[in-house]
Amino acid sequence: MEAAGEAERAEAPSHRHPQPIAEMLDVPFLPFCAFLCCLGIVCVAFVGAWCQHWRGGFAWDGSAHMFNWHPLLMVTGLVVLYGAAALVYRLPWGRRGGRLLWKAVHGALALGALALAVLGLVAVFRFHAARGTPDAYSLHSWLGLATVLLFCCQWLAGFSAFLLPWAPAWLRALYKPVHLFFGSTILLLAVASCVSGINEKLFLSLKNGTTEYKLLPAEAVFANVLGLLLLLFGVLVLGALARPSWKRPDAASPDSCQPLLGAER
Amino acid sequence: MEAAGEAERAEAPSHRHPQPIAEMLDVPFLPFCAFLCCLGIVCVAFVGAWCQHWRGGFAWDGSAHMFNWHPLLMVTGLVVLYGAAALVYRLPWGRRGGRLLWKAVHGALALGALALAVLGLVAVFRFHAARGTPDAYSLHSWLGLATVLLFCCQWLAGFSAFLLPWAPAWLRALYKPVHLFFGSTILLLAVASCVSGINEKLFLSLKNGTTEYKLLPAEAVFANVLGLLLLLFGVLVLGALARPSWKRPDAASPDSCQPLLGAER
Repeated sequence: MEAAGEAERAEAPSHRHPQPIAEMLDVPFLPFCAFLCCLGIVCVAFVGAWCQHWRGGFAWDGSAHMFNWHPLLMVTGLVVLYGAAALVYRLPWGRRGGRLLWKAVHGALALGALALAVLGLVAVFRFHAARGTPDAYSLHSWLGLATVLLFCCQWLAGFSAFLLPWAPAWLRALYKPVHLFFGSTILLLAVASCVSGINEKLFLSLKNGTTEYKLLPAEAVFANVLGLLLLLFGVLVLGALARPSWKRPDAASPDSCQPLLGAER
Repeated sequence: MEAAGEAERAEAPSHRHPQPIAEMLDVPFLPFCAFLCCLGIVCVAFVGAWCQHWRGGFAWDGSAHMFNWHPLLMVTGLVVLYGAAALVYRLPWGRRGGRLLWKAVHGALALGALALAVLGLVAVFRFHAARGTPDAYSLHSWLGLATVLLFCCQWLAGFSAFLLPWAPAWLRALYKPVHLFFGSTILLLAVASCVSGINEKLFLSLKNGTTEYKLLPAEAVFANVLGLLLLLFGVLVLGALARPSWKRPDAASPDSCQPLLGAER
């Protein structure tokens, strides 16, 4: 115990210089971002391959092939594109100047993500309508609908507060932390929706004999891995958003609250 | 557009005093914590009522009644008690002095949460063994096992680094942000596991005639609401952990890295 205490006292000076220790954990953003980009592409490829190879591919005709658009569009929009929209401000060229351009890029990517999510909902609703299955009964569907609804509100509030010129500066400053909190929350809910949705789909689809879910056929392993990859993507994006050293140095500056359209004056 | 610009210029001085705006959003921690405490109790009561009222109650005999311990112990340990363990440092009396005591409280609560989670796994494994059902095939089970495994590693690493005296100070300082990151990640994974587990249980249990899940019987509504309450609890705990104004003012001080057992010298 005493030896440990001696060792500690010997190392105590390192506390006076916490910076080098912090730097040891400081992953550079760009390689991390490239990894995240690859991971996002792998997630989309996995969900596409699952639907194409084991679930019969894609169509827009109310059949089970129409349902397949639902996981593809949700993963692409609500997780991968949403994650990209959330992280644009962390890019080095997004952090330097040109904030109004990056605001527009953030808003446009988020709008694209929202559009894909809404199309994903249309796909599953039309599939249910063609089959006479009720909508929105499972916890997955409640959660997914709540996520898309929150995302709609978030986009509209963000657009009104940060891109239109009529929100007063104090309101934008007040709303910004709320926007950031719900930004992370929506991604967390989206990932939880995807995981519960993949689990649900496998229970509903793998029911008979040799393909039974509990026998863990290749499709089940593949889709389970997809679920874990989506969780990894979500956790890494949320971790990147929370990392202080990757935040814009001027995140609290007046300019950060300047509306996009107001800049045209 | 010009009028909006005028309004903005008129309000510009508020930027020079960002503190009052931040204060407008500053919820006091104690009422928030009391609400979170009630929400945690409601979650445990909900899962208990679900298992007691609709799933036949509890037993430790390998039957379906033994399975019921699984959701109860997981929700109580891996979500509610884990959330309490994560938040002890944010309590006003946890933030003032007595850090070593609060370290021990944090470690003990986390150990309690881990013990309940392991018991919850034992319950489901013994239920599967009695029925001849394979273990760990669904995405829910993969995710749940990964969560408990990560939690084990987190507890052991935290205990070794922060409570035992032999970890050098620089290692504790290096490991601390990793511990915080995985602390939030494990809660996120636990909540995603619970949501996918509730969804899975309802699909497996509500299969016949009038109780079919898609007909949304009272049990389905009740358990779906439980899933949403757990998500709300998880999001609020993660939000509270990320809130800068609720962090210990001395979180980066040398004392925060002092081991518990080393203090007995």
